[in-house]
Amino acid sequence: MTARTLQGFMELLPEEQIVMEKMKSVIAHTYELFGFAPLDTPVLELAEVLLSKSGGDTEKQIYEFKKGDTNLAMRFDLTVPLAKYVALYNNNLTFPFKRYQIGKVYRGERPQKGRFREFYQCDIDIIDRDELNIVYDAEVLAVIYTVFNKLELPAFKIYINNRKLLSGFLESLDIADKTVDVLRLVDKIKKIPEEAFLGELNDMGLPQEKNRKLLEFIKINGLNNEIIAKLENLNISNENFVCGLDELKTVINQAHNLGINPNNIQIDLSITRGLDYYTGTVYETFFDDYPQFGSVCSGGRYDNLSSVFMDKKFPGVGISIGLTRLFDQLRDNGLLKIAGSTPNKVLIITQNPDFADKAINLAGELRRNDIPADVMLRNCKFKKKMEYANKIKIPYLVIIGEEEIQNNTYTIKDMNSGEQHTVTIDELLGLIK
Amino acid sequence: MTARTLQGFMELLPEEQIVMEKMKSVIAHTYELFGFAPLDTPVLELAEVLLSKSGGDTEKQIYEFKKGDTNLAMRFDLTVPLAKYVALYNNNLTFPFKRYQIGKVYRGERPQKGRFREFYQCDIDIIDRDELNIVYDAEVLAVIYTVFNKLELPAFKIYINNRKLLSGFLESLDIADKTVDVLRLVDKIKKIPEEAFLGELNDMGLPQEKNRKLLEFIKINGLNNEIIAKLENLNISNENFVCGLDELKTVINQAHNLGINPNNIQIDLSITRGLDYYTGTVYETFFDDYPQFGSVCSGGRYDNLSSVFMDKKFPGVGISIGLTRLFDQLRDNGLLKIAGSTPNKVLIITQNPDFADKAINLAGELRRNDIPADVMLRNCKFKKKMEYANKIKIPYLVIIGEEEIQNNTYTIKDMNSGEQHTVTIDELLGLIK
Repeated sequence: MTARTLQGFMELLPEEQIVMEKMKSVIAHTYELFGFAPLDTPVLELAEVLLSKSGGDTEKQIYEFKKGDTNLAMRFDLTVPLAKYVALYNNNLTFPFKRYQIGKVYRGERPQKGRFREFYQCDIDIIDRDELNIVYDAEVLAVIYTVFNKLELPAFKIYINNRKLLSGFLESLDIADKTVDVLRLVDKIKKIPEEAFLGELNDMGLPQEKNRKLLEFIKINGLNNEIIAKLENLNISNENFVCGLDELKTVINQAHNLGINPNNIQIDLSITRGLDYYTGTVYETFFDDYPQFGSVCSGGRYDNLSSVFMDKKFPGVGISIGLTRLFDQLRDNGLLKIAGSTPNKVLIITQNPDFADKAINLAGELRRNDIPADVMLRNCKFKKKMEYANKIKIPYLVIIGEEEIQNNTYTIKDMNSGEQHTVTIDELLGLIK
Repeated sequence: MTARTLQGFMELLPEEQIVMEKMKSVIAHTYELFGFAPLDTPVLELAEVLLSKSGGDTEKQIYEFKKGDTNLAMRFDLTVPLAKYVALYNNNLTFPFKRYQIGKVYRGERPQKGRFREFYQCDIDIIDRDELNIVYDAEVLAVIYTVFNKLELPAFKIYINNRKLLSGFLESLDIADKTVDVLRLVDKIKKIPEEAFLGELNDMGLPQEKNRKLLEFIKINGLNNEIIAKLENLNISNENFVCGLDELKTVINQAHNLGINPNNIQIDLSITRGLDYYTGTVYETFFDDYPQFGSVCSGGRYDNLSSVFMDKKFPGVGISIGLTRLFDQLRDNGLLKIAGSTPNKVLIITQNPDFADKAINLAGELRRNDIPADVMLRNCKFKKKMEYANKIKIPYLVIIGEEEIQNNTYTIKDMNSGEQHTVTIDELLGLIK
């Protein structure tokens, strides 16, 4: 039998796994800093529940199968399970409900570089009954900003837009019936030349004059306050547009109030997020120097999370970090700055197997003092033991030899500085703590 | 569409989820304290890889399906994936290799109270090339002991045995050809009357006199050192037996040397762990007052982890905690002592929506000081906001009203003591830290 791991499934060596775990823990810690509580839903769900909301593309990718008489599917995101969860338990939840979930999701995509079939999503969502304060859309910005800083990621910008602006603008041009198609096209604007963009609008049967106006609108740029001024100067009275502009202004102002560096937020009227269920604020996040990574953190505001399951209205706002792909890209580009250290802090080795008892006893003492410790118990030469210590990059090495046994002392070596001392147990504990 | 969660899949409300996360983090932290590094393998594997080692019962329970031309299966434990991992990457690993993994596994059992189809296993294993020092078997005991204490679990005992003792004893009785059947029967000794036990041995065609000896052997009891003395007094010279006794003595002695309370370890010669691949030390863990929970942490020593994948020999020792079932049993019996606190430490509320800016600004300041904080941004009456604060059991409440705005102060209420102070921002930070 050949040992094999499926293509498109990430499996890391211990040194890399430690960095990955560190990233997960920084993300979880930051989410909790903003008051989000953890949630854990099953990987397997009834197929009809998971597919209740999805479109054709997702369905082709889903891992779906029958067990007995039941059609099962592996989750392909954490949003549909959340919609189900809120529908099931809303009577027991306290709103506004702020939850985070870090978990694996599954998509049977054609495997290719940077595409995974099993990958971590790290989601936050804030859900309320009937209405959700727009300031939460700024809080979500602050979460992304804080997470990215704490992960020591490369220079980044969070691009923000409000979908009401574009749909209001289309209404003001009297071409609201084309909104869905136009939104999908706008989403591609950065990938196609302007002429192709206008051509596709023509193909939709839209008049040239309006197409030009649309293109100009999407291309409005400058600093955030300049863009807002330009939007105000359009003097559009459409209700949707006015509401969108008002929301965008609040989000930008409150983002500053929350302490986000203004250089990390950029209004971009071409960001729409293809998905139909976003209804207001939308976010995408790019690294300034690595646009080819694509958006590494995206999301937005939606009017009604659980609409397929129930009549009650639960508006929300949320984002997702695709951690597996992000880790892969950072690693491949030498950008993993965050240091995951070996869980082990002290390695104890003996010059003679007869001294093992003292070494084992010391390991117990260190652990009781909450200091991660290990004894090298392999029966091998002292030189091999030193090689092992170097290989696992241990911070402190404790050596027990003849002298240490006789004097009831320990020789401790700081592996970074190379400094070495012979000390008592109390001194040893003090030194390491 | 009805929102439903599959039977046998645990899904918790936020308060309970927080406790579950706390348990996971205590377990992970303790594993790291003993020098184990984290590992994360895929949930999905090639069916042939997962089924390479399993017997008939497992195969019936496995979630197996076809995607394209590939037979896939969801992992049913973390041991087979580890065997695959070591076979695949052994050239890149440093031995002794100490890894832990906390992850979900899947078994399509008939759902019933206390049985889950998706559940967390929390595993540790120590693997070496060719030979693994017996002292690691004592380290594993120390890990269980420390984890159970840190989880604040009810009084427990780790039952330990060495399979070489029984197989050596059977060899000395000249009935080694029945070892597998006898081991399986011995595993049931606590569930069936002695007469039934002897009857089944008779049915195997074993002579009555040897059956009596076997029963007496299994029933040897007393304190650990008494049992060891009784075993020594049997004066059995069989090589297997002598080796098993020697190993057991070392494990018990080193367990004491590591600082384990002797009352938490009990040699029990009837513990065999049905699985054929255990070859030496075996462990089971029971709560003194809740034997009906069954063994809540089990494992043992095996000669060759990856034998189905390769010729190289990798002996190991490990244990697994079935966390989902344990959590369920503890909860149902009111035994969840460990407190998971809401991630949120401070809730900020305003007496008037106009004061929101100051509240939001303060939230940013607190979070920059690593203090989890949240603003209640729902547009509702002050009384409702207070109700929310009580409901989420927030430790500190900050209230911003007219006076606080005018004097640039904050009123902070310690929700446990009920004490209330009006303070500056610096005093506020000092107070909470």
